[in-house]
Order: sequence, then C-alpha cells, then structure tokens
Amino acid sequence: MDFNIIRCARAILHVTDLDASRNFYVDALGFIETEADDAHIYLRGLEEHTHHSLVLKKADEPCVEALGYKVSSSGDLKALSELFEMKGFTTKWFQKGEQHAVGETLRVQDVSGMPLEFFAEIDSVERLLQRYDLYKGSRMQRIDHFNYMVSDVEAAFNFYNKDLGFACSEYTDTENDDIWAAWLHRKQTVHDLALMNGKGPRLHHVAFWLPDPLAIIHTCDVLASLGYGENIERGPGRHGLSNAFFLYLRDPDGHRIELYNGDYLTSDPDFKPIRWDINDPMRQTFWGHEAPDSWFNEASAVLNVLTGKKVEQKQGKLKQHKPTFII
Amino acid sequence: MDFNIIRCARAILHVTDLDASRNFYVDALGFIETEADDAHIYLRGLEEHTHHSLVLKKADEPCVEALGYKVSSSGDLKALSELFEMKGFTTKWFQKGEQHAVGETLRVQDVSGMPLEFFAEIDSVERLLQRYDLYKGSRMQRIDHFNYMVSDVEAAFNFYNKDLGFACSEYTDTENDDIWAAWLHRKQTVHDLALMNGKGPRLHHVAFWLPDPLAIIHTCDVLASLGYGENIERGPGRHGLSNAFFLYLRDPDGHRIELYNGDYLTSDPDFKPIRWDINDPMRQTFWGHEAPDSWFNEASAVLNVLTGKKVEQKQGKLKQHKPTFII
Amino acid sequence: MDFNIIRCARAILHVTDLDASRNFYVDALGFIETEADDAHIYLRGLEEHTHHSLVLKKADEPCVEALGYKVSSSGDLKALSELFEMKGFTTKWFQKGEQHAVGETLRVQDVSGMPLEFFAEIDSVERLLQRYDLYKGSRMQRIDHFNYMVSDVEAAFNFYNKDLGFACSEYTDTENDDIWAAWLHRKQTVHDLALMNGKGPRLHHVAFWLPDPLAIIHTCDVLASLGYGENIERGPGRHGLSNAFFLYLRDPDGHRIELYNGDYLTSDPDFKPIRWDINDPMRQTFWGHEAPDSWFNEASAVLNVLTGKKVEQKQGKLKQHKPTFII
Amino acid sequence: MDFNIIRCARAILHVTDLDASRNFYVDALGFIETEADDAHIYLRGLEEHTHHSLVLKKADEPCVEALGYKVSSSGDLKALSELFEMKGFTTKWFQKGEQHAVGETLRVQDVSGMPLEFFAEIDSVERLLQRYDLYKGSRMQRIDHFNYMVSDVEAAFNFYNKDLGFACSEYTDTENDDIWAAWLHRKQTVHDLALMNGKGPRLHHVAFWLPDPLAIIHTCDVLASLGYGENIERGPGRHGLSNAFFLYLRDPDGHRIELYNGDYLTSDPDFKPIRWDINDPMRQTFWGHEAPDSWFNEASAVLNVLTGKKVEQKQGKLKQHKPTFII
Repeated sequence: MDFNIIRCARAILHVTDLDASRNFYVDALGFIETEADDAHIYLRGLEEHTHHSLVLKKADEPCVEALGYKVSSSGDLKALSELFEMKGFTTKWFQKGEQHAVGETLRVQDVSGMPLEFFAEIDSVERLLQRYDLYKGSRMQRIDHFNYMVSDVEAAFNFYNKDLGFACSEYTDTENDDIWAAWLHRKQTVHDLALMNGKGPRLHHVAFWLPDPLAIIHTCDVLASLGYGENIERGPGRHGLSNAFFLYLRDPDGHRIELYNGDYLTSDPDFKPIRWDINDPMRQTFWGHEAPDSWFNEASAVLNVLTGKKVEQKQGKLKQHKPTFII
Repeated sequence: MDFNIIRCARAILHVTDLDASRNFYVDALGFIETEADDAHIYLRGLEEHTHHSLVLKKADEPCVEALGYKVSSSGDLKALSELFEMKGFTTKWFQKGEQHAVGETLRVQDVSGMPLEFFAEIDSVERLLQRYDLYKGSRMQRIDHFNYMVSDVEAAFNFYNKDLGFACSEYTDTENDDIWAAWLHRKQTVHDLALMNGKGPRLHHVAFWLPDPLAIIHTCDVLASLGYGENIERGPGRHGLSNAFFLYLRDPDGHRIELYNGDYLTSDPDFKPIRWDINDPMRQTFWGHEAPDSWFNEASAVLNVLTGKKVEQKQGKLKQHKPTFII
Repeated sequence: MDFNIIRCARAILHVTDLDASRNFYVDALGFIETEADDAHIYLRGLEEHTHHSLVLKKADEPCVEALGYKVSSSGDLKALSELFEMKGFTTKWFQKGEQHAVGETLRVQDVSGMPLEFFAEIDSVERLLQRYDLYKGSRMQRIDHFNYMVSDVEAAFNFYNKDLGFACSEYTDTENDDIWAAWLHRKQTVHDLALMNGKGPRLHHVAFWLPDPLAIIHTCDVLASLGYGENIERGPGRHGLSNAFFLYLRDPDGHRIELYNGDYLTSDPDFKPIRWDINDPMRQTFWGHEAPDSWFNEASAVLNVLTGKKVEQKQGKLKQHKPTFII
Repeated sequence: MDFNIIRCARAILHVTDLDASRNFYVDALGFIETEADDAHIYLRGLEEHTHHSLVLKKADEPCVEALGYKVSSSGDLKALSELFEMKGFTTKWFQKGEQHAVGETLRVQDVSGMPLEFFAEIDSVERLLQRYDLYKGSRMQRIDHFNYMVSDVEAAFNFYNKDLGFACSEYTDTENDDIWAAWLHRKQTVHDLALMNGKGPRLHHVAFWLPDPLAIIHTCDVLASLGYGENIERGPGRHGLSNAFFLYLRDPDGHRIELYNGDYLTSDPDFKPIRWDINDPMRQTFWGHEAPDSWFNEASAVLNVLTGKKVEQKQGKLKQHKPTFII
C-alpha cells in the first residue's frame, strides 16, 4: 500500500441540543472544550495534542456525519482517493479551510455504507495531560476506536483488512465459522475499528480511553450525582474480548459512548488474532454479566457523504444477532 | 445498658464440601486459613488479630449455625443472659473449650428467630496486615456485617435498637412509612447488622471489607479466571444506601457473601439516620442498575440454637418485597 | 470516667493570608468551604455532616489557636471541667453563640501545654459524600487525627490514657524502653491523637482521611500542576506504624497537613498495642524511605487558651530526636 | 529505510545467583517464569505472547550481555546488517537454534558501545493476560524500554534517529542547547530507548509496564514485606518527562529495573517532541522530589558482542551530570 492510515481521529455527531450535550460531555465526562460556536462544540481529551476528537454539530435529528481517520501526509490522501475511485467508490474533497481546524479532507462511503473521512492535518493545541488541576469527571484521555454495526461483516473486514491495511487483533466466529465481529487496528492498540453483525450501516459507539479503572467507577458516581443514572447502559465490566474494563453510556441524543481502560500492545506482526466463539459467555463480559437488549439493537444512523441524507439500513447478514446464552 | 456489644465477629456456616469451599474462600477470595480439621475450616482476613471471622463446618446441607458478636467482658455475657431470660428467651451456654478458639459463649434465638451467639474471648493470632506478600485474590481484610432477612423488620429493629443498643445509620421506608430495611451498628461503621423485609428468618449475606475499589474489580477478574463467573450474583456497583462499593457472590453452597469498600465513620451520636424511600432507584444501586430477583428471593436457612433443627420461615410482613421500579 | 470524648473534631489554625489559604485548601486539596467571612474560612470534608473540621483564622502570624474534640453531651463538658480543675488546670468557657457554628465550649491547656477545646454541639450541614460531581483535588473526606510534638511524651501519654480515656493502638520505644511516640484513639481508628518527642508544645500536623490511595497520588499531581510542588514535604509512602498510605504537605503558612488512607479498625478492647523500635527502619516508612529533617524539626507554635500568647517551648525530654538510621 | 524495527524486546542480564534472582523477579515482582535451566531463567510479563522479555544468565559478575530489538522479518536483519557494515560496524550472527527460543539473530555494538541484538522470530507462548488468578506482586505486564547511559548523547541520538529510524518524543536540553537526554521510540509509546549523558556505555535500566498505579504502590508493600526495602532506590513518583508513574528498583546484582505506568500514545508523525530544560525541577520528578545520587552515578557495565569482555567506559561528554537544583 502506498498510504499510511495512522489511527481513528475524530467523530462528527449530529446532536439536537448543544447545551444538553455540553452538560453531558464537558461537565459530567470531563472532555476539554477546545472551541465552540453556535452550531458546533469541538472536544478533546486531556492527552490529545490535536484540536479535537469529537465534533458535536447542531442538527434537527441525531446522526453520524463522518468518522475521521488521520493519515501520514497529503500524498496518502491522493493514494487513498485513487484506490477508492479504482474500486468504484465516489469520493468528495474538502479543501483546507472548508472544515474548521482540519486540513484537506477526503470523504467516502465505505463498503458497508459508513461515512468515512481521511485527513493528514489537524490544528495543534496545548496538550493538557499534565494539567492535573483540570482533571474532572471521567478524566477523559483520548479517542480510542469506533464500532460499526454492519450487515455484512465479512465484506467490511476484507475492505479494511485487505484494501486499507488494518490488522486484526481479535474476532468472533459463529458456529458456522462466519465472522460475526472483528477488531481491527492501525495504531498499536487492540482497535481503531470494530465491526459487528447487525442492522446497518450504523455507528454502534465511539470509544474513549481513560487512565485507570477507578476513573470508570468515578464516572458512574458522577453521572448518578448529576442525574444521569439512566444514561449508563452497560457496565462497568471487563470484556473478555480486548480485555478492556468498560462502561457504555448513551448521550442525551442516544449516541453510545464507550469509556475504556485496559487494552494491550499490538505492535507485533506475528501476533496471532485471538478467536472467540460468539456463544462463549466470557467473550462479551469476562465476568459473565449479560448485556441489555438495547446494546444489541440500538445504534446511530449515518449520513451519506455526498447527499447528506440518511443511509438506508439492511438487516445483518448473519442470522444470529446476539449470543445464545443471552437469548 | 450494663453490657457492651462491640461488633459482629464471626459467622458459622454449614457447607457440604470443605474442599470446594476452600477453593472458593482461600484460593479465589484470599482468606487466610488459620486452621482446619476434618470438619471445619477457620478463616480470617488480613487485618484480623482474632483467630477467625468465618467458620465453615462440614454438614449435610447448607445452613447457618450461628452469627457471633463480640462483647467487652464475660460480665457482659451474664448481663445479656439476664436480659434475654427476663424477656422470655431461652439461652444456651458453651463453656470455654467447648468451641474451638472461642471462650465462654452465650447462644440465643433472637426475636426474629436468628441464631445469635455472644462471646468476649477469642484466641489472638498474628495479624497479617503488613504481610503484603500474602495478599491475593480479594485481599480480604475483615468481617464487616451481617444482613438478615426477617418477616417483621420493625420487631427486629426494636430488639436490636432498644434492647441491645444498636444505633441506626440509615433505613428504608415504604410508602406507608413502615420500615422496610434498617442499617444498625455497634462499631463505628455503617453497620454490624442490616435487616430487610422478606421470608425469614434467613441470613441474606455476610459482608467482608476490602481495602480499595480495585480489589473488588480484581476479585471479578480472578473469579472469572478460575471459572467462578456464575458465582458473581450482583455488582460491582455502588449502593446509595451506605455508599458502599459492593459485589455479591454466592459460595459453592449458595451462601451469599458481600465484598465491600466505602463506608463512612458513624462515631457521632448526633448523626441523624438517613431515610431512603424504597422506590428511590438510587437507594439500592446509586447508578440505577437493577438487582436480580435471586438477590431478593434467595437466602440461607438458619438453625435453632437449642435443637439444631432448621427454623421455620414466615413470609415478610410488609407486602412489598422489592422496589417497584424493578417490578 | 463519667464523660465520653468521641473524637478529634476540628483545628483552629491562624493563617496570614486567607486567599492564599483558600487557593491551597479549597482549589487544590478540594475541601468544601462551608462558610467564610473577612476573618475566617470554615472547611469540611465530603463525608462530614458537621459544619467544619478546619477553621482558618486571619492573623499576623501562623499559630494554632485550639484543637477541638467532640464529646457526647453537655454533661460531659461539666465532668471534664471538674476533672481539669481538680487536677489544677485553669479552664475557660465559651457560651453557645460566642464561637460560630459551635455550642458551649470548654478550653484548657493540656499537660503538655497544647490548647484543647471540647464541645458537644456543632451545626449540622448537608453531607456531600454522594455529591461525586463536587469531588476534586484530594477528594477530602474527613478529619482523622492531630499529631503533637511534646517535650514529655510519657506525661502526655498518661494524661490522655489515664485521665481522658484514650486507648493506645501503637507506640514507639527507645532503646531504654522510654515511650518516644504513641498513637491514641477514642474513635475506632488508629488514632485521634499521636504524641511524639520533640521541642514542644507544638502541633506537628493535622491529618485528613482520603477515600483511596489514588487520591493521594492525584493530590501530588494536582499540587505540582498548580505550582505547589514545594509544598510536598514527604511521601507518598506507607507508614509501618498505623499502616497508613500517607502524604505530608506544608500549607502556605507552613502548617503541616497529612493526607491519609489505610488504617484499620480498633474496636476491640483486647487488641494489644503494637510496639515499634524507634530504630526499626520500617516503622516510619515501611518501604525504608527517610523522612527529611524538616519533618522532625519543624512544627506549628500554639497559643495559650487564656492569654492568647504563644506558649513557650521546651526541648524534648528524650535525647534521641529521630531514628538513628537517618542520622 | 528498508527495515522495520518494531520494538525493544528483551534484555540479557548476567546475574551471580539465579535463586536470589528468582526470589526477586518471580516471587516478589510477579514475572512469569517461562522456562529455566541451570544457567538461565527466562521471564515474561502477563501480557506477553513471546517466550520471554528478560533472560537472567548465571555469570561470575553482573553485566549486560545484549539488549534485543524485534524486527518485522528476516529480510530486515539482512538490511540492518548491510547498514552496519557500510558504516564500519562489525556484526555477529547467531543462527536459529543457537539461542534458546529465538530465531536468527544479528548482534552489533552500537555507536556508543552498547551491545545490541536484532531478531524477527521468538517462540510464541500462552499469553496470560486473562489468567488473573496468576497475578501477583507487581502484576508485571510487558517490557517497555531500555535506558542507556552514554558518553556522547548526540552521537547516539543521531545513530538511532537517523540511521535506525527511531522517533523522538521528548528530550532534555542543557543551558547550551546540548541534548542531555532523549526519549526515542519505534512502537507507539513514549520510548523503546532513552539516552542520558554520563559515564558509559552502561545500561541505566530496563523498564517494565504495569497495568495501573496501585500495582506500583503494592510492589513497594510487597518488597518491604519480603525484606527488599533497600532495593527500592527511587519513587514512587511521577516523571514530568513521559508522564510516567514510576518506581526504580535494584535487583540482587544491582541491575536497575523501572516499573512504569502512565505513558501516552505516540502514533502521530506530526507530534512535536517535548523539550525540557535539565534544570526544570518538574522534569525528573513532576512533584519536585530529588533523585538520589546513586541514580545518576550507578549503572550496569556492558559486554562486547564479539569478545564477551567488558566494554571500556568514558565520562559523559557534557559536564553537567545531573540537574543543578539537586547539586
């Protein structure tokens, strides 16, 4: 490949009430608000030297506008564009200045219909990692990964693995050895991107990394103190898959956010992907807890990068839509 | 009162398989095994200078033989005995030497039918608090409290509060202002004893105190690693009531064990008991999580201190047997 | 004894700059500011249901005005007063209303010259233990103990132990079996009061209890972020004595504050005090770290409760003023 | 560059007493012993899927035999070999099977005289990350980095940065803008390798990554319990540089081991290296604590990869050998 995708870098989420979102993300979860205007809030974690990793955009209904990946150089954008066009995907360019704080950007709908963007440049800002006096709520550190719910996991897996060069760290098989879910990475963590079988294309969640397990427990306490108890959807718990200590939240518009601590280093090309059986009770929750149905059924709709309309959804290709031990 | 009950001090649980119990309590949870013989295992926490706080006794079926409280002196035993007899309770004495490692002991069935014992003396052993090299599993520290499920909470409350001098830290009221549950203490923590409405007399759980919240998370990980995932019944979570960070386990015989961190100091006589409404979702779990039905329905049968037979159980006097938001 | 001292309850410290103190105690350490006026700041921890546990009083120079203990009832104050007078101590009374938020108060200089006060009543305020959204800095929970540097530890030990009913949890002996330091308690923790040999009477430190060890590490990070790195005098570390995970700070006026997590339950009258040799390197710091000289040499001067003048200081009676392994 | 160095991968340390080393590394620190024979112990962390990351080799005196880096493929070894030879370095090859558990290996003395090795293959073993029942002591996770003390930091910096493709995350400048120390990485953490000015070539330390800050505190407690208090040389503390929460230990032979938690992601090529002034007190220890002289003066001698003899040492080129605020 003649391009280098570095990592997942930002999500652009449409939200219906910026003040409600700010209360949740900034006051409760402790995101740093880099900038805001009437229509946007730009958020980042304490470790991030980039302008933002989450854009909340005022809109009439909740939706996902784009999921952004950072590449090494503008040459990579050109190479990616050529790849997509060769494969029959229609791309869209934003020139530098068209999107706030971000350089030249290539957008494209992926093979599953997910709205992607790629850019090499994003404004640098002061990294606040050692401004411990500003730590609050979840002590939010950095964006970690996206999770897509897609109708054809195998097609998506091949697209990211073969065409875009994502490595697989772990995956879930059905009884028929179909890939039900996969964890794929460019940076040296368990994932930049997870795929799961289901009605899609939809964004299942965006995940952010926290510095230690107590930050997740404190998040629950802070959310409850502020009346956000019902926004806690699942956890805290340990994923067998990825070994993450996790918490799943729903934001005021229903977008799902994962808070995440744990992980391991995935630098080695000879690391053999870990296979999990979908019906292994320790896969989803190492301790055996069940996930609620909402976690399997609900996810955020996504927009077409060319038309700005919602992308139509198809049922998951694999019949099993969640583990049998839950059913 | 001319006696001084210091604290809850030990539980004697009948178990059906001592090896299975040892695997669970010693290998997984990290209790210190002070001593054992063919019919008993004597366990203590790392902080305890007393011979044991938990006795596992081999028997044909799981049961609770006695719940022991430590008093200041043998004079207290005499005063307690007089009180019980005056009130019409039949008492039973064990002389020093009749029970291993424990001095003269007074047993009595309480007003709810729970099998109590009182003693002033228990053998001293090396306290292992600073033998950090022995810490494993849950890093078990010390016994914290008992929780009784009883058919008449108000009667039990009056017995412990008025006759035995337990102070109330927190309590749960129904819509009709009946006491549905109460947290009572002699030592300066939230409780030595909690009472809850339900089919009883039964022991709902024995709780042990851990040094920090991560010890509870690590317990879940260790239990899952050893195949005890299904023994995790509820949690980890935060109780609104008591502010404890908790985990409920079921031992191999079904006895329920709570692991507990948090609490607060209850030294002040002018501290006003905290009232909770039974239907306040933050009462049980501050974060809003529901407890499973088993947590409300299942508990350990108890023995008659005189006959050694199982005590007959009555339904809880209050109709509501769990919060409405769960129903 | 016909009185019941419950616990150490508040310190009144004279400080020279209330704003500088507020920056340190409220903004950095996370104390709750219950109230303030031109001359006072009243602070409490998140767990405290009492109006304050620390009073900072504007003055020309740093000093300790009084160290307050809470008793059970006003009858206790009368009994204490009679005891002190019988022993030849001169007492001073404040009527309810003379001191803000505190009821009738008895002041007296103790046998070492330390300025004590006793009161039964203090205003109740909202306990913020479950307002996790307000947690910041050290997540300050509650006052834990005082540490006095006195010239005659044995005399002080007898006064608190025999006359006032404090129990001893641990103590330090010299080679000649003189008590070099002692840990004394009324509430069921390791101490309300520690005594150490040295130039006195002086207040060595006031200690506050934190919820977990990470709160102490985060305190260091927050202090450093805010430019208070030089205010960290010693730690974090583990005391052999008391098993506390500790941090010693100097406030902007040089008063020493200990942050403290760990401890153990001291409810049992048959618990045998733990003896430490002063030259045991694990006594002071379990891990073997040395304490800086300032920790042994510097402490806060105290005021005479009758005259308001500084109390004259004498050298410690025992020649050894710190462990030999440090010298 | 036509080779890809993935990460630091193993250290081979000569030790004088394998049993003493095992007590320290396995029993106290919690390393997994993969294998051992009369002359070697092979150790790994809980996260590692590779056979070992630390080899302890029985020898007459403590020394460093080699510091190993993992590369992507055997082709990389050839390319590296050509580079070294072109630059005038003499290389040495081990064929597969000559070193236990490791494939074909290239050894070379680096520009500073440090003994390096490169290999692509190392045996795979069971990863024990989710065997929480085996966690003990420090809960050792994985090798993190090496720290070299070298006489000419600038020469070493250029060698690793320009010739071998290491990126710089942070560095320390003297008043004259000489590089006094540098943090260099191939994997996406702060470093695989740090360089510091001083008498060299010597190995200052090998660092291992732990899962959370409490694991470091517990390590201190466990070491003290086992009589290893004097092996704690420095910390726990926070480095300003790298933001690591650290602990420095000396093993029974005096080799220095760092335990490490914290770090941040260094995936982005546009991340600007962070410059620190050597005399900034927050650089070394964010909280302002001083490092002991031994930390600046003592380090492990290294062997010549061709002759097996100790490499001669030269004084550090920069006169300043530690920060002025310590002097």
